[in-house]
Amino acid sequence: MLTRQFFVKIRTNFTPSKNYSQAAANAVSNKQYPKRIFSGIQPTGSIHLGNYLGAIAQWVKLQEQNEDVILSIVDLHSMTLPHEPKILSRNILEMTATLLGCGIDPDRVVLFQQSAVPAHTELCWCLGCISTMARLAHLPQYKEKSKDMKDIPLGLFVYPILQAADILAYKTTHVPVGEDQVQQIQLAQDLARMFNSRFGDTFPIPHTITTGAEYARLRSLRDPSKKMSKSDPDPKSRICLTDNFDDVVRNIKKAVTDFTSEVTYDPEGRPGVSNLIGIHSFVTKKPVEDICKEAEGINTGQYKLVVAEAVVSYLRPIQDRISYYLKDERYLLDVLRRGGEKAGEISERNMEEVRCRLGLRFTAKDKKKVQLTR
Amino acid sequence: MLTRQFFVKIRTNFTPSKNYSQAAANAVSNKQYPKRIFSGIQPTGSIHLGNYLGAIAQWVKLQEQNEDVILSIVDLHSMTLPHEPKILSRNILEMTATLLGCGIDPDRVVLFQQSAVPAHTELCWCLGCISTMARLAHLPQYKEKSKDMKDIPLGLFVYPILQAADILAYKTTHVPVGEDQVQQIQLAQDLARMFNSRFGDTFPIPHTITTGAEYARLRSLRDPSKKMSKSDPDPKSRICLTDNFDDVVRNIKKAVTDFTSEVTYDPEGRPGVSNLIGIHSFVTKKPVEDICKEAEGINTGQYKLVVAEAVVSYLRPIQDRISYYLKDERYLLDVLRRGGEKAGEISERNMEEVRCRLGLRFTAKDKKKVQLTR
Repeated sequence: MLTRQFFVKIRTNFTPSKNYSQAAANAVSNKQYPKRIFSGIQPTGSIHLGNYLGAIAQWVKLQEQNEDVILSIVDLHSMTLPHEPKILSRNILEMTATLLGCGIDPDRVVLFQQSAVPAHTELCWCLGCISTMARLAHLPQYKEKSKDMKDIPLGLFVYPILQAADILAYKTTHVPVGEDQVQQIQLAQDLARMFNSRFGDTFPIPHTITTGAEYARLRSLRDPSKKMSKSDPDPKSRICLTDNFDDVVRNIKKAVTDFTSEVTYDPEGRPGVSNLIGIHSFVTKKPVEDICKEAEGINTGQYKLVVAEAVVSYLRPIQDRISYYLKDERYLLDVLRRGGEKAGEISERNMEEVRCRLGLRFTAKDKKKVQLTR
Repeated sequence: MLTRQFFVKIRTNFTPSKNYSQAAANAVSNKQYPKRIFSGIQPTGSIHLGNYLGAIAQWVKLQEQNEDVILSIVDLHSMTLPHEPKILSRNILEMTATLLGCGIDPDRVVLFQQSAVPAHTELCWCLGCISTMARLAHLPQYKEKSKDMKDIPLGLFVYPILQAADILAYKTTHVPVGEDQVQQIQLAQDLARMFNSRFGDTFPIPHTITTGAEYARLRSLRDPSKKMSKSDPDPKSRICLTDNFDDVVRNIKKAVTDFTSEVTYDPEGRPGVSNLIGIHSFVTKKPVEDICKEAEGINTGQYKLVVAEAVVSYLRPIQDRISYYLKDERYLLDVLRRGGEKAGEISERNMEEVRCRLGLRFTAKDKKKVQLTR
């Protein structure tokens, strides 16, 4: 018994870097910085239910809680792999319409296009100068994405630095993240700490928040052992926000379940049917228990139709709003322009402080400004 | 004989990449782009005679020829190795005063601070997305600078891309370069070509000009086999623009020559004394032959005093002007501000075109703009 306890103690003392990083982040008080949430989304063609529940719906919730939310359509990140300009510009507009259609209110959230605000790439350069090659080469997302590539684009390597700049340019205190992004947020935390210790206290150490964690677990319809993902080559593995009635019914009908016909919730033992119950619960706002009770007496095949019906009813008004916004390109551009102006003002104020810290600016007036913005 | 000729032919066909690159650059007509010269200089503390003759004096010459010259104090490059903010900001002002003192006229040349213009880092990101890791890792300057480093800063690796962005942001057609920069200019040429072929004709392919090539040969006073360099640990190896009378006399007196006492010009056989004659010829505007004739009958020891005297006389008015400008910090800041505005306007126009090309902008108005600026 003693040995075992000792072993446990050693394990507790030997905090892995993830925990250490979190502890250090918490140790630095961010009290002097007002709470601000930043998140980014790439302008990709199709948003699936996993993205929606895990990210967009959470941003809407934060907006409804009157948080200070800055939301960027990160088009510069979309260039890190070869891209088609016409598709990118179309996707930026579609993403804007989608976010508005999902309930993002551009008067309460700063919604803008990353490439409209110069602070992102400028701060990326500054942070790149205090980053090392070795640190970036060890980031798992880079290793994963580059492993089968012959010619690795530089953008793919520098990507996490731009992500850190996105966050720090706004003196962000909180970043909503999925599990797979935790290490990249740690890079932002480390860079903030390094910058502060070398050049003076400038950035809050951003905390991660995982409000949508329960939905990050949304599984692929074709293989419940995997997450629902847009990179899955089989479109039947997911439900997209813009899927029509037939698509939704077909994909849910073909969803992989198991050989038990009852509808019971057991994510470990029965991931397929539990995934459908999870989706059903979200779109109807009903607790899982009620759903299972209501489904007593029908089999999973019949239940799939119930879920499909509920998803379609939930998506229809969102889809209608997205179509409505997409018809008004001028309005979408105006939303982006206004958001860009707001984001530009906030980040420019912070960048002027950064420039002073780095010795790129000199006047007494500038030094005074630094005092004021902290 | 036949075999030999055949071999020669094969060699001729097999053009190495350097020549290929140059040929391709010349093949693309830049006629549609007005001639524009861009150059950058790092805000380092001391400018020596080699920098002066090889770069600054050449810029003044181009200015006098009424060329369209854009001259950037590249402070963002000075951050690629660890730096001290207070020294950097001081150096930026000193470099501005030095350039003005050397004859750069801010009303005829766009003189500005790189970090004041966002286009540099924005275009750096865009070009980084079409660059590969392998290409950068093979650049000799990177290999040279990083070879003894344990932790290589990312900035050192990405440096040549920022340099390419500096050049292309202004649709530069001509870049004055030293021999050691040719490969980095080739990167800018390649990136311009790649961007044009992927996204449409946007950038001229910048040519290199080597107007100051004869002075790039200025040698170290302590070891005439090496170039005069600010990285030489021995300050007696060079003459700095701000050296006082005693420094100049001491350094030239201690200059390494040879065991022949006559003053004759023979750069290959007698590099030490020829180096002094070269400096002497530049500061007095006298041909080398006249100098040698005048020095008949005196030995190299006596000749050194003549050279020192001439250098001091040449430097004194420049030093006076530098001190004069340094006393007027407000004027220097105003020069930089005005230059930054001009550089910002030119580069922003070009960047708006770049953004349209990349699909980051969408309106018909923007597309029209693109037509206009080409």
